[in-house]
Amino acid sequence: MTRVITLTTDFGITDEYAGVLKGVILCHCPAARIIDITHSIPPQNIMAAARMVGRYAPFFPPATIHLVIVDPGVGTDRAIVVADDGLHLFIGPDNGVLTPVLRSSRLRCCHVLDVKKVAAVSSTFHGRDIMAPLAGRLASGMSLSEVGPKVSAADCVHLHLPAAVKGKDLVRGEVVAIDHFGNITTSIPAEDLLQFAGQISVQVGESKISGLGETYADRREGALLCLIDSRGWLEIAVNRGNAAEKLSCSPGDLVEVKGNHRCCP
Amino acid sequence: MTRVITLTTDFGITDEYAGVLKGVILCHCPAARIIDITHSIPPQNIMAAARMVGRYAPFFPPATIHLVIVDPGVGTDRAIVVADDGLHLFIGPDNGVLTPVLRSSRLRCCHVLDVKKVAAVSSTFHGRDIMAPLAGRLASGMSLSEVGPKVSAADCVHLHLPAAVKGKDLVRGEVVAIDHFGNITTSIPAEDLLQFAGQISVQVGESKISGLGETYADRREGALLCLIDSRGWLEIAVNRGNAAEKLSCSPGDLVEVKGNHRCCP
Amino acid sequence: MTRVITLTTDFGITDEYAGVLKGVILCHCPAARIIDITHSIPPQNIMAAARMVGRYAPFFPPATIHLVIVDPGVGTDRAIVVADDGLHLFIGPDNGVLTPVLRSSRLRCCHVLDVKKVAAVSSTFHGRDIMAPLAGRLASGMSLSEVGPKVSAADCVHLHLPAAVKGKDLVRGEVVAIDHFGNITTSIPAEDLLQFAGQISVQVGESKISGLGETYADRREGALLCLIDSRGWLEIAVNRGNAAEKLSCSPGDLVEVKGNHRCCP
Repeated sequence: MTRVITLTTDFGITDEYAGVLKGVILCHCPAARIIDITHSIPPQNIMAAARMVGRYAPFFPPATIHLVIVDPGVGTDRAIVVADDGLHLFIGPDNGVLTPVLRSSRLRCCHVLDVKKVAAVSSTFHGRDIMAPLAGRLASGMSLSEVGPKVSAADCVHLHLPAAVKGKDLVRGEVVAIDHFGNITTSIPAEDLLQFAGQISVQVGESKISGLGETYADRREGALLCLIDSRGWLEIAVNRGNAAEKLSCSPGDLVEVKGNHRCCP
Repeated sequence: MTRVITLTTDFGITDEYAGVLKGVILCHCPAARIIDITHSIPPQNIMAAARMVGRYAPFFPPATIHLVIVDPGVGTDRAIVVADDGLHLFIGPDNGVLTPVLRSSRLRCCHVLDVKKVAAVSSTFHGRDIMAPLAGRLASGMSLSEVGPKVSAADCVHLHLPAAVKGKDLVRGEVVAIDHFGNITTSIPAEDLLQFAGQISVQVGESKISGLGETYADRREGALLCLIDSRGWLEIAVNRGNAAEKLSCSPGDLVEVKGNHRCCP
Repeated sequence: MTRVITLTTDFGITDEYAGVLKGVILCHCPAARIIDITHSIPPQNIMAAARMVGRYAPFFPPATIHLVIVDPGVGTDRAIVVADDGLHLFIGPDNGVLTPVLRSSRLRCCHVLDVKKVAAVSSTFHGRDIMAPLAGRLASGMSLSEVGPKVSAADCVHLHLPAAVKGKDLVRGEVVAIDHFGNITTSIPAEDLLQFAGQISVQVGESKISGLGETYADRREGALLCLIDSRGWLEIAVNRGNAAEKLSCSPGDLVEVKGNHRCCP
C-alpha cells in the first residue's frame, strides 16, 4: 500500500537537508508519497511547529505518517516519540513538538525510541539518521511495538499552549501566528464567540475592529476585518492587504473580544 | 491511470496551505502526481498568475490538471471555472486567472461550478474546500458535465493582458515580469522583431541596448543584452547579473524596440 | 522500475522553471519520482552547486539520477556530461558542477552529449530542452552509450575545490558554506582533527573557539561551539543561534585549527 509521509521542519529550503530526508525515506520505503508541509518553521521554534501540527493533519488520508522535526536538543538523550491517534502516526523528538497530538482525545498510544540504543551516524542530524528511517520503516509495515516501549502521553514533554480565557462579555486570547498574507491567527476559537452573535469589537494593540465578517471581500479594499478562519479560529485580516503590517502585530500580542450586544438593545 | 496535477498559488511556503491542498487531493485521488509550479505569485495578483498559466502548461503530459488559485474573492459567489483545452484541464476561480486558456484557439469547453450549491466548510479557503476536491475527483474520472453547466468562455471573467503594439519601425510593449535571476520578460513576441533581422535598439527607462544576442554569454560578464527567452518573448538580461536591479525596472514599465536597419544601409 | 530523479538548480522558486523541468521529465518518464534538493543555489554559482553535490547523493537509493543545473554558459557549445559512479547517474553542464563526482574513486564512466547535435528549442533553457529530457529518457531505460561518446573524466571541466592544509599542530581551511541556521561549514574534515583528540582552538576572523563539542546543547544557549557536522566536517555553530551572523563570516574566510595539547601536558 502506498503510504503518505508529510514533512514539517525548520530546515529551510536552501540546504540539502529536506532532500536528504526524502532520499533516506525512499531507501526504506520506495513507494512512499512524500509531501512537504513546510520547512519554514522558525529555527528551533518548537511552539510554532506544535501549533502547526494540529492544522494540517486532519486533511490527509488515513494511515498518513507525519514527521515533525524541530529539534534543538539533537544529539542529547531526548527520546523520539511516535504517537498514534487512530488515524495517523506522528513522529518527532520528545520536546513538545507533538503536544496537540499528545493531548488529543483521539490519542491511542505513544511509543518512545531510546536514542542511546541507536547507532546514529551523527549527533547533529537525527532527522536523517533516526527519524526518516523510522518513518520509512513504519510506512513499510514495521509495527509500533518495534519502535520501543509504550508510554503514557503524560510521560512525554508537553508545551504550554495558552488557551483563550472566556468570560461573560469578554474573551481574551493572543496572536498565535502571522501567515504569508499577513493574516493574524488568534487563540480564540469560533465557539467562544457564539454568545455574541457576531456583535463584537476586537482590540489588538491600539486598534479596535467592529463586527464579524464572513469573507475578505465583505470590507472595502484595504480595510481591517475580523472573521472566522478556515480552521475555526478568530482571524484579523485586511481585504487584499497585510493586517500584521498594518497593526505592527506579532505572536504573543494580546487580543481581546468584547460583546457589543449590551449597548445595542 | 496516474494523473498529474499542478499547483500555482499565492499561498507562499511558510504556512500549511499548499500541503493541505495536497492532502485533500490525495484523499480524493491517492494516485495523483502533484507538482508545484509556484506558491510565490504575489498575494492577490491575478494578473501575475494569468501571465504564468500559459508558460508552464505546454510542458506537461496529456490529461494534466492545472489548479490555479489566486482568489481574493474567496467566499463571495464568484464561480469556479474548469476549462478544457483538449490537452489539459484548468481549474481556478472565475476572476480572470485562466484568461490565456479562455482565449486560446484550442479551448474546447468551459464548465462552471456554482459555489452557492456547495457546502464549503469555510468561506476563506475554497482551494481546500472546493477546488482541491474537484481536482482530485476529476483526476479520478469524474466527468466535466458533473462539475456544472457548460458556459461560453465569453461568459467568464477575462483580464486585459495588454499586447505589444507593432508599427513599421517600432514595437511598443511593456515589462511583464522579473524572474529570479533579474531577467526582464516583456510583452513583445519574437515574431514582432523578425522585420528588423536582429538590428534593433531597445529602450527601457533611460537605458538603450543595441542588437539581439543569442545566449547570455554573447556579452561580457555584467553587460546588458537583449535576447529571445525560452518562451519566445523579448528578454532583457545581464550576463551573470541582474538586469532588473541594474535598470531599476518593474512590471508595467514601457519597452520600446526600434529597427536600426535604416541607418545602416 | 520506478526511478528517483533529484533536482539541484539556481532557478529559485518564484518562477515556473523548476515545475517545467518536472513536466518535461514526466513526459519522458511518467513513473519518475522527482525530489527537489534545492533551487536556491546562488545564481550562476557553480562552486556552491559542486560543493552540494557530494553532500546529498549518498543518501539516495541505487539508480537515482541527479540533475544539477547551474548553467551560466547555456546556449554556448559547452557539452552536457553524464557521469556514472556505479551507484547513481549525474547529469549537468560541463562547467565543473559535477567536480566531486568526476574526482570520486568510485567513478565508472563519463559520457558527453554534444549540444550542437541537438535541436534545442531555446538557447537559454537547456535544462528544459536537453537535460530534463535526457534524465527522463535515462530513467526510462536509455543506455549511456546513446548519450554520446565516452570520455575521460580528465577531459571534463573541473573546479578547484581547495582542500584543507594539514600541518603537525595546525590545520588551515576555509568557510565553504553557511546553512539556513547560520551554521558554518568548513573545508576541514574530521579526520584531520583526530591528531588533536578534541583539544583544539579554532580561529575565524577575530574569534577563537576552544574545544570540540558533540551536540549543539553542549554549550549554553547563545554560545559559540565547534563540532563535527552530520557530513563529517568541522562546523562552527551557536547553540540555538546564528553563528555566521555572530561572526560576520562568509564563504572563503580563513579557518585555522591549532592543537591545544602542547600547552596542557
